[in-house]
Amino acid sequence: MSSKIKVGILGATGMVGQNYIRLLEGHPWFEVAYVAASAQSAGKKYEEAVSGRWHMNGPIPESVRDFVVCDATDVSAAIHQCSVVFSAVSMDKKAVAALELEYASNGFAVVSNNSAHRFTADVPMIIPEINPEHLDIIPVQRKKRGWSSGLIAVKSNCSIQSYMTPLHALMRKGYEVKRMFVTTLQALSGAGYPGPSALDMIDNIVPFIQGEEEKSENEPLKIFGKIVDGAFVNNSSIKISAHCNRVPVIHGHTACVSVEFAQRNPSLDEIKDIWQNFTSLPQKLSLPFAPLKPIIYRNEPNRPQPQKDRDSDKAMAVTVGRLRACNVFDMRFVGLHHNTVRGAAGGAILSAELLKERGFIK
Amino acid sequence: MSSKIKVGILGATGMVGQNYIRLLEGHPWFEVAYVAASAQSAGKKYEEAVSGRWHMNGPIPESVRDFVVCDATDVSAAIHQCSVVFSAVSMDKKAVAALELEYASNGFAVVSNNSAHRFTADVPMIIPEINPEHLDIIPVQRKKRGWSSGLIAVKSNCSIQSYMTPLHALMRKGYEVKRMFVTTLQALSGAGYPGPSALDMIDNIVPFIQGEEEKSENEPLKIFGKIVDGAFVNNSSIKISAHCNRVPVIHGHTACVSVEFAQRNPSLDEIKDIWQNFTSLPQKLSLPFAPLKPIIYRNEPNRPQPQKDRDSDKAMAVTVGRLRACNVFDMRFVGLHHNTVRGAAGGAILSAELLKERGFIK
Amino acid sequence: MSSKIKVGILGATGMVGQNYIRLLEGHPWFEVAYVAASAQSAGKKYEEAVSGRWHMNGPIPESVRDFVVCDATDVSAAIHQCSVVFSAVSMDKKAVAALELEYASNGFAVVSNNSAHRFTADVPMIIPEINPEHLDIIPVQRKKRGWSSGLIAVKSNCSIQSYMTPLHALMRKGYEVKRMFVTTLQALSGAGYPGPSALDMIDNIVPFIQGEEEKSENEPLKIFGKIVDGAFVNNSSIKISAHCNRVPVIHGHTACVSVEFAQRNPSLDEIKDIWQNFTSLPQKLSLPFAPLKPIIYRNEPNRPQPQKDRDSDKAMAVTVGRLRACNVFDMRFVGLHHNTVRGAAGGAILSAELLKERGFIK
Amino acid sequence: MSSKIKVGILGATGMVGQNYIRLLEGHPWFEVAYVAASAQSAGKKYEEAVSGRWHMNGPIPESVRDFVVCDATDVSAAIHQCSVVFSAVSMDKKAVAALELEYASNGFAVVSNNSAHRFTADVPMIIPEINPEHLDIIPVQRKKRGWSSGLIAVKSNCSIQSYMTPLHALMRKGYEVKRMFVTTLQALSGAGYPGPSALDMIDNIVPFIQGEEEKSENEPLKIFGKIVDGAFVNNSSIKISAHCNRVPVIHGHTACVSVEFAQRNPSLDEIKDIWQNFTSLPQKLSLPFAPLKPIIYRNEPNRPQPQKDRDSDKAMAVTVGRLRACNVFDMRFVGLHHNTVRGAAGGAILSAELLKERGFIK
Repeated sequence: MSSKIKVGILGATGMVGQNYIRLLEGHPWFEVAYVAASAQSAGKKYEEAVSGRWHMNGPIPESVRDFVVCDATDVSAAIHQCSVVFSAVSMDKKAVAALELEYASNGFAVVSNNSAHRFTADVPMIIPEINPEHLDIIPVQRKKRGWSSGLIAVKSNCSIQSYMTPLHALMRKGYEVKRMFVTTLQALSGAGYPGPSALDMIDNIVPFIQGEEEKSENEPLKIFGKIVDGAFVNNSSIKISAHCNRVPVIHGHTACVSVEFAQRNPSLDEIKDIWQNFTSLPQKLSLPFAPLKPIIYRNEPNRPQPQKDRDSDKAMAVTVGRLRACNVFDMRFVGLHHNTVRGAAGGAILSAELLKERGFIK
Repeated sequence: MSSKIKVGILGATGMVGQNYIRLLEGHPWFEVAYVAASAQSAGKKYEEAVSGRWHMNGPIPESVRDFVVCDATDVSAAIHQCSVVFSAVSMDKKAVAALELEYASNGFAVVSNNSAHRFTADVPMIIPEINPEHLDIIPVQRKKRGWSSGLIAVKSNCSIQSYMTPLHALMRKGYEVKRMFVTTLQALSGAGYPGPSALDMIDNIVPFIQGEEEKSENEPLKIFGKIVDGAFVNNSSIKISAHCNRVPVIHGHTACVSVEFAQRNPSLDEIKDIWQNFTSLPQKLSLPFAPLKPIIYRNEPNRPQPQKDRDSDKAMAVTVGRLRACNVFDMRFVGLHHNTVRGAAGGAILSAELLKERGFIK
Repeated sequence: MSSKIKVGILGATGMVGQNYIRLLEGHPWFEVAYVAASAQSAGKKYEEAVSGRWHMNGPIPESVRDFVVCDATDVSAAIHQCSVVFSAVSMDKKAVAALELEYASNGFAVVSNNSAHRFTADVPMIIPEINPEHLDIIPVQRKKRGWSSGLIAVKSNCSIQSYMTPLHALMRKGYEVKRMFVTTLQALSGAGYPGPSALDMIDNIVPFIQGEEEKSENEPLKIFGKIVDGAFVNNSSIKISAHCNRVPVIHGHTACVSVEFAQRNPSLDEIKDIWQNFTSLPQKLSLPFAPLKPIIYRNEPNRPQPQKDRDSDKAMAVTVGRLRACNVFDMRFVGLHHNTVRGAAGGAILSAELLKERGFIK
Repeated sequence: MSSKIKVGILGATGMVGQNYIRLLEGHPWFEVAYVAASAQSAGKKYEEAVSGRWHMNGPIPESVRDFVVCDATDVSAAIHQCSVVFSAVSMDKKAVAALELEYASNGFAVVSNNSAHRFTADVPMIIPEINPEHLDIIPVQRKKRGWSSGLIAVKSNCSIQSYMTPLHALMRKGYEVKRMFVTTLQALSGAGYPGPSALDMIDNIVPFIQGEEEKSENEPLKIFGKIVDGAFVNNSSIKISAHCNRVPVIHGHTACVSVEFAQRNPSLDEIKDIWQNFTSLPQKLSLPFAPLKPIIYRNEPNRPQPQKDRDSDKAMAVTVGRLRACNVFDMRFVGLHHNTVRGAAGGAILSAELLKERGFIK
């Protein structure tokens, strides 16, 4: 019998849910043992529930095909089936917040892609290479809420992940970011399926994504923040202005970034050097989903490009390029990451791996 | 017999040249009387010379189809055929600079899309709604160079035209721009034909266009500059940082812009009001190619979009939208224009119309 | 006061409805006087009802912007407002069939894009250049149904129009078609809005369109059929096999066609000659929407192409090319037409013009 | 020291050459030991030679990066470096024919993607699942030409591979094909790099590919042919009509096929059964590049699709679907394969594996 940790996928029939199922196939520590979705899908076999809307390359993994889909809102059904749930449900934000709390209070480790708890004061928003120490909040969270084994940890919005790790690498060396401009060119898969109409995305771009600029401006402040008296306090010394665009690309968010440093200002060579040599806790722990090099710098003048760079290192690396002086701020560059892997399911799996290593998931 | 002013197209077989021929068909003041291109095309009928590479919608205008293409480097061939030449030749920059001077010294009014003379001290870089008074340099130019009827006027790079007129409208009201960030999402037609490979532009964007960021940062300074002692002096109080991207859009450059004002700071309502009421000399003179409203503001949250807005008002209007406060600078917005019409051939025709109204072209 | 014929658009907020409104702007004979749509839109101003989903280039025509949208299922509301209705409602097929009958029985001339009545025995399916004489059924229809001024006429499916006129031109010269294969590459706009997801149409084609192959195989038989004893009888001597594909093209259906003739077999030169010289009743009557040449033959080896040829002659011409011998049947060619103009709203307007000339619409 | 067979890639810097290098990385039997290309690339390191035009996902394999590129026309340079050459040179057809002969006469086993020798009477055109017995010509070829270890074997054009294996599976069961129509929707990568301009492939399709229809109609006849008196004789009982289109898809050729059988006519169920159970010699021999199931049948009504099915089974399987009765011939279906893997480099590697198993490569 498998000694792997049993995990459940909430929202298993959606695009992010399908990515969990695809990515967890053959995972050395975790095994998908439970799939849940909306009431309409409940009771069907997984294969049947995603019939005509399985969007992954390759077939549905054999191990999941015949699972009966449960109702994600019925927490009791998951008990004894799994100890960890990856939450990618598509519901009203308040309902998600309540549901995730219910799972956690029933002893589940909830690792969520949803935005509902991103600003809950005792919930960590984790990018494992950046703020692994934010997991120190978990004991506080458990104590405060009276949970013994349950927990909630969330991941950030996909739009910010093309530049957060590169910026963190610089900040860790003492180069604090003061202000920055970022313009994103975001892929279609970030909107889920069906997402934008092809009529709107052939021979076109759309310079607007609902709610995305606000998330891009606020979430980094928590991720770069600290735990003070058992609650997160944002890093309020950083100011970000974000313009978010949808472009006709399947996967891969690109970001054009201009940065002003607070005081000390690294040279371009130093920045490149810092990026190329950056590793962090996931690499030290050799977590299964950790990229060997979290930041890949490309010297070609026209890279990174989504079609060519999104899949680097299991689609878990951030690729950067075009580092150059900025005519207004201190420096500028282009960053890129795979939004449904690094920026969604893959990033959450890496967080779960970190939770396990820290002993919070058993 | 037609009393229209006879014009010639240099580089008539290329994409910009084809646009001139398409747009000048039926023009009330100008008539294409001469077409010239590279030595390879010289001697062929125009129809034959563009066979298999006529990229305009609709057929080649009847009036031009049977013209024999001349060699653009042979200035003498154009004499007595036309008095104005629109220059869209594709040659080495130095060769273009010399050739345009030769045309002008032979009495031709040269209106150029080429970058060769953009920073020549006595050559005006005209956006007719912004700096029509820069044509005051023409008498200086003629005197200095000993030309009686010849002249050179140029247009700016297409990448900047999505925001120059909106910024000018504010500056005219006393709201000086101090610093700005702009990220462009530029259409394929800006690269000419064949331009980027489809293999690179399906499911992809390219975050680099050779030379485009430099032009975007420098050209506005001259356009917003002044004539001092018979030569242009840049407006050096503005700092621009540009990120330029190529996206899979046929026509229409989009720009995401964040602006910091120098001193006084207009409210968002005031900005919108200024834009919606902006008109300038081309409108006052009712020039044939002048859009009725040079700036169209759209209130929908997801506009402007290239596919939907590029053709507004004969493709000569700039469409703006998404005006909102900026989290770092004072305000931000999205601008869009048709790069091969407003940003290239159409803009140059409007400049020529202005030159005629000012009496420099006869 | 305008003496134009007042027309109503049923389904005015949808993609085809919007095309009617765009195309009828400035029509010399017809004037949009009434717009109706689903109950959700009813009561709103037209501008408001299509807010965020106006998909035409250019703004909503002034003349229609402030119209209050009525409920299309309330026939009484249209009485005295218009005498002709263009039906582009999106409802269950049986409901459409009943509703169109109700309009007709209330005295309206119904010209429909819907498939509901295409095979009703006394309803003509009109392509004005092909079977204008099928309007002879109207008196029969009226008599049988007891209508004095009402009538129903329908247009065919858009998928077939890239080749029907070229085939008809040959048949009119005595070259009967016996069997044919057609593979279509159909544009996105044929599916209405939103239609296919961009995730499915970037870097992809879909080799299936629900119901389209059946329509493509059956409708030509009625169009090429005859009135016998007051009812249509199909031309059963033609056999068609259709493969229908969706491709990432905004507008313009392309068809690859191989044809076997029944007996006599024209030479390729003869076919080209027949096509280039083909005109029909709409051209003879100089109907406003009639293309000057219904069939445009292009000699370039790689034409027609949707992006380059769909707009030919007000987007009402069919463009053909690549005529060559077939290795299995007698000849093959490629045809193309604009599916939302020639193949939908524009084609129906041309039918209405013909109905007016025949005296059936007043 | 490696005991793998050393292979060379001729045309190693092009798109097909790059695919060879990517696909052969880690091959159990073959090892890339030699790379050659045009004179311009000769003398450079491979990494440098493909700088800015490496189009594969993932980096250049370490093992090849530092190889010095040789001149492909200098056969002597390859001697002692490798015993097999995969030919993907891009030259004049006659020059390729002569060059491949020169390699073979110098003892190299030449496996070619080029069309130069496809109709040479003693050269086999191999699709390993279909006509492995055509390799019986090799001893004849060697004897006739006086070669001891050299040989030439070629692969067919990529356009035909979406349907050849499915048709062969039926023919092997006694269902001879008499006539067929095929319309292909071919991917961009089939044209090499840069291939079509993005301006021509966004919002467009092109209904023409130079030379492709002729290849599609002729090559199957040789592949389905026989060796008679030491030379290939075509199967002249099959007639094919092909329409070839270029569509905006990166990889994956789709084919819409209608088939008329010669005499006996299998039921649709029987056809599906034959396809699902089809295996051939490469599967029996467990060749490394052989797909487990050469033909994958998908029951969904809208499959196969290039984006979703091209990568099936290492991109070496053909995916079919939409099997249904044809309104003119006997049956019709849609087939799809990955044109640069199954249809180019991968297919040639599979042929080389077969040559090794047959003892022709050592």
